[in-house]
Formats: sequence, C-alpha cells, structure tokens
Amino acid sequence: MITYYAKPLAKLINKLSGFPGVGSKSAQRMAFYILNLPTEEAQALCEAIIDVKQNIKECPICHNFSSNEICEICSAANRERDKLCIVAEVKDIISMEKTNEFHGVYHVLGGVIDPFNKKGPDNLNIKDLVERVSKNTFEEVIIAVNPTVEGDTTALYLSGLLKNFVKKITRIGSGLPVGADMDYVDQATMTKALRGRREM
Amino acid sequence: MITYYAKPLAKLINKLSGFPGVGSKSAQRMAFYILNLPTEEAQALCEAIIDVKQNIKECPICHNFSSNEICEICSAANRERDKLCIVAEVKDIISMEKTNEFHGVYHVLGGVIDPFNKKGPDNLNIKDLVERVSKNTFEEVIIAVNPTVEGDTTALYLSGLLKNFVKKITRIGSGLPVGADMDYVDQATMTKALRGRREM
Repeated sequence: MITYYAKPLAKLINKLSGFPGVGSKSAQRMAFYILNLPTEEAQALCEAIIDVKQNIKECPICHNFSSNEICEICSAANRERDKLCIVAEVKDIISMEKTNEFHGVYHVLGGVIDPFNKKGPDNLNIKDLVERVSKNTFEEVIIAVNPTVEGDTTALYLSGLLKNFVKKITRIGSGLPVGADMDYVDQATMTKALRGRREM
Repeated sequence: MITYYAKPLAKLINKLSGFPGVGSKSAQRMAFYILNLPTEEAQALCEAIIDVKQNIKECPICHNFSSNEICEICSAANRERDKLCIVAEVKDIISMEKTNEFHGVYHVLGGVIDPFNKKGPDNLNIKDLVERVSKNTFEEVIIAVNPTVEGDTTALYLSGLLKNFVKKITRIGSGLPVGADMDYVDQATMTKALRGRREM
C-alpha cells in the first residue's frame, strides 16, 4: 500500500484505527484532531492513558475497575450489602447505577457462557461468585444479563448453582422497551413480554 | 453529575469524548480498549501522539503536513511541477492521490471562503498561492474544492485572481456519482450533470 501521509501521522492513524468502532476515516479525523491540539493537551491525553494503565486495577471482590485496592462500590458505607447484582461486563454496572434504583453490590462475570466463542463457566468469574454467595447472606441476587441465548444460558446456569445459598434469585425483566410500539416489536420480545406480564 | 467510574478512567473517557465524532458511549468503549491494551502498546500509542505533535510540520510551499522541512510531494523528483491542484484541506490531497491520475503538486488553502463562519480570503493560504502561481509556470491549475456554495465562491474567486498568470484553470467535474440512479439524485446535481455533459 502507498502511504499518503508523513510517517508519524501514518503511524498514529494506524494505531487509532485499531480502536473499536473506529475505521480508517475516523482514525484520520482523530489524528488530525490530535495534530491540532495544543501540545499541553496532547501531553495531558498521554498522561491520562498512562494513568489508566498504571492505576486502574480489578477489584478482588466484584471485578469492577478500581483505582483503589477495593472498588468504590464495594468499599462504600451506604450500599446494601445483602443485595447482589450479577452483571456480565463492567459497563453493565453503569447501566444499573444510572437507574438509581439499585443500591446493593455487584459481581462482574467478565462475559457470558458462549460455547461458540469458547467461553465456558471456567473462563468467567463464577468460582469466586459461588464462594462469595455461600459465605455471605444475600437477601436477593439479581441476575442482570442480556436477554440473549447466551444470557439465558448463563442465567439458568447461575441460578442452578446459587439456589442452595440464596432464597430469592431474580432476573431483570424482558419485554417491550419504553416507548416501543407493539406493532413493530419482534415476536420473541412479544412472547417475553406476555410471559412477563404483571398484575395491576 | 455522579461519576460512575474510577477517577483515572473518568478522566480518560472525558478526554476521548472530545474527539470528533466520538460520543460518550464510544469514548467509554475506547477507554476500555486502552485499559485492556498491553502496557507497551499503550506506551506506543502515547509515543505516536507525541511524535505527531513534535515532528509534523506544515510544508512552507504547499501547506501539506510533513515530517521533513519540505513535504514529500513538493520534494519528490517524479512529480509534474507544471500542474498545480488547489485543495481546501490536507485530507483532500489523499482523495486526489488515491485516484492515481494526478501527478502534479498541491496547494492547501486551509478551508474555503465562508462568510457565515467568518472565513474570508485573508484567512486562507491565498496570498502565497498567488505569489507561487505568478512566479512559476503552471501549464494547468486544477481547483479541487467541493461543489458547495462556499466551494463555488472560492473557485470563482481564485480563478479571477489566477487567470492573469495561467492559461488553463479547471475545476473538477460535478454530476452523478458512479453507481448513482438518476431517479434518486437531487435536482441541483442533475442540473450540474447536465451542464457538465461531454461529447462521446
């Protein structure tokens, strides 16, 4: 391939196009943006990158990202320690937190059971989840994974493992999203919505 | 606003969401990507950023980005020095180069005349363009700016300035893009296509 850019620029574009969701055009735009940044801003960007790499660790309790030994949620005084929410990824914690409805603690699995991508229970943070649930008294365990085939499998597997230790194991609801039109919703979602109907 | 992330992570997400075309979700994905990079890769990314900031300069002849004093195109031995292509932005050079049809040299204006955004001829690299064209013998000057109102204005303005020094001033063609369907093309484009018709 012919390179149309000066070498340092081509190298940066190449690095940026490795980012998720960033194609060559976006990488080009981003590189031009960096080129036009004030030098101290570019420096600050680098410092932020290095800072993240050096100071973000995995919380040994819940596997959330943390800048302290124990993450902010696990170490917070005002969380309800008898409610556990199991999520697949760290970013799912944010989705839960944004509802402002859950004030318990979390456990990040690091994915879901997905045989096609060679991800079994052994590749997830399940062993220490079982240990954690067996050693603590949780009033409720909420399984907050996506309503996909893999999510369903994972939820079923986990509930089987945990039901000896917790009385109440729930899974977040599935059905029509707020604002949706029944007319346009797919059949699987309609089925889920019907099965998940609640008395008024 | 509540921050859901550990501080270093929140800071990086904040910096990344300032990038063009990057919203908060993409910034989050990108930050997680950086977090999962091997340390040496993150280091290399920073080095690439600093390298660009330190070593990319503007070519004093054509205003292209360059890692040398004079840019690669201006200093190349095999370019046709009697053909000049005027473009608005550096990235437009890439579009031209990719055609593999033009082997002349360039002049980057740094934008187009755009009174609504307070960009007049004085804010563009026009003064040295006129000097360059008057001092060199160009067989042809191609104006390769977008077929927009601002582009049209700029092209008209430039052709007025340069016609005393060059015999042949052209502008890149405008009309139906390859693969387009006349049925779906807007009226302005159809008009341009009709006016730009060529004998077969």
